[in-house]
Amino acid sequence: MRNLKLEIEYDGTNYAGWQVQPKAHGKTIQAVIEKTLRKILREKIKIIASGRTDAGVHARAQVANFFTSSNFPLSRLKIGLNGILPEDIKVIKLNEVGPDFHSRFSAKSKIYRYTILNRGYSSPLWRNTVYFYPHPLDVKLMQKEAECLLGRHNFRAFCASHGREKDQIKEIRRIAISRKKDFIYIDIEADGFLYNMVRNIVGTLIEIGRGRIPRGSLKKILLSRNRRLAGQTVPPRGLCLLKVKY
Amino acid sequence: MRNLKLEIEYDGTNYAGWQVQPKAHGKTIQAVIEKTLRKILREKIKIIASGRTDAGVHARAQVANFFTSSNFPLSRLKIGLNGILPEDIKVIKLNEVGPDFHSRFSAKSKIYRYTILNRGYSSPLWRNTVYFYPHPLDVKLMQKEAECLLGRHNFRAFCASHGREKDQIKEIRRIAISRKKDFIYIDIEADGFLYNMVRNIVGTLIEIGRGRIPRGSLKKILLSRNRRLAGQTVPPRGLCLLKVKY
Repeated sequence: MRNLKLEIEYDGTNYAGWQVQPKAHGKTIQAVIEKTLRKILREKIKIIASGRTDAGVHARAQVANFFTSSNFPLSRLKIGLNGILPEDIKVIKLNEVGPDFHSRFSAKSKIYRYTILNRGYSSPLWRNTVYFYPHPLDVKLMQKEAECLLGRHNFRAFCASHGREKDQIKEIRRIAISRKKDFIYIDIEADGFLYNMVRNIVGTLIEIGRGRIPRGSLKKILLSRNRRLAGQTVPPRGLCLLKVKY
Repeated sequence: MRNLKLEIEYDGTNYAGWQVQPKAHGKTIQAVIEKTLRKILREKIKIIASGRTDAGVHARAQVANFFTSSNFPLSRLKIGLNGILPEDIKVIKLNEVGPDFHSRFSAKSKIYRYTILNRGYSSPLWRNTVYFYPHPLDVKLMQKEAECLLGRHNFRAFCASHGREKDQIKEIRRIAISRKKDFIYIDIEADGFLYNMVRNIVGTLIEIGRGRIPRGSLKKILLSRNRRLAGQTVPPRGLCLLKVKY
């Protein structure tokens, strides 16, 4: 049995997320890749990802692995996969890893990027990959306030109410908020993320950047562990899984 | 009568170009905007663009103008337009100009950008706005060779055979070819462009960058005025009208 590791880029716009969610409808990225692997390898394949991404969320390099008894050559497998996969899902890397490698449990950290288009009018060319927010945002203040999230904390206040993760303690290792012309990038690296955690943090940071909640609020919300105090969940389209570190 | 100038961003993927072409089918960007203006201003509007863009070609700032007898306030008109226009067409600027302003005839130059994704696998996230070309390209050589195109020349060799422009003399003022990670940008500024001119020049530059035609070929092709000597026409999706200068 070989253990094969995939790096996958996808545009999540037309999918119900990586994996079927209880209430989700429509095709999932995982199902499309498994079906394609089965076609080529002629055996049933189950792939394990570093984590789920929600409907509409993108990935520049999602990582997944699977076991196969097939000896199909790797370079041909990658070409074959990309030949069959739809335009919005492509395998960017494929290599063999040791039998102990597990995309989810071996991951040391993940980096998500949330992109806000911050100008007076939305963008046709970026419409599926950014969240358009027309009101002025104070990026420096957002960065300063965000720093209280660094380190190990219980992030329950930023966890969707229907997320039922047992372990709500996560460690955020880096938050970098930067502006480049009309785009604001919020990069968050953590050892793990709760359901909707990035989108809830970003929603709260937007309230701060707009001056609608006072300085110091983010820390209070974090400590409260009360989801109702945090800002709105921003739309999935602005979210992208940039990298998984092992 | 007021003469109103529009700057428009659009994703051309789902359109048959700016203006209806003889053989084209499907909706055009011009028709969608005219219909929207008519709805708001309650009069028939004819808009004049700086030039046509082909099916699948994008614009970051196409310029168009139109005359109206309506006194509708400009800021409300812009908001109204963007509220009705589809997600892939938005008005980014709207202002009143003098009666002599003509989007096409007043233009001093236009800048087009062609983007090549130059790596071993295509990109789901960029699939509609880049041309994926997997073979290595020598960008420095492309830039060096491209410089013979600067200045006033007859560009017939790079004009689509069914383009019937009388004036095939154009002046290219700048060609900048640069690489940023996996992306190659080819920016061309000229006082005007023949039909498919950018896409034919890029197709020829790719042959040069790949080493499939010898150095000096571009100048020979230019002087030959023979379309059959130039490279293939690259796909429209990589092309974007960046700016029109007045």
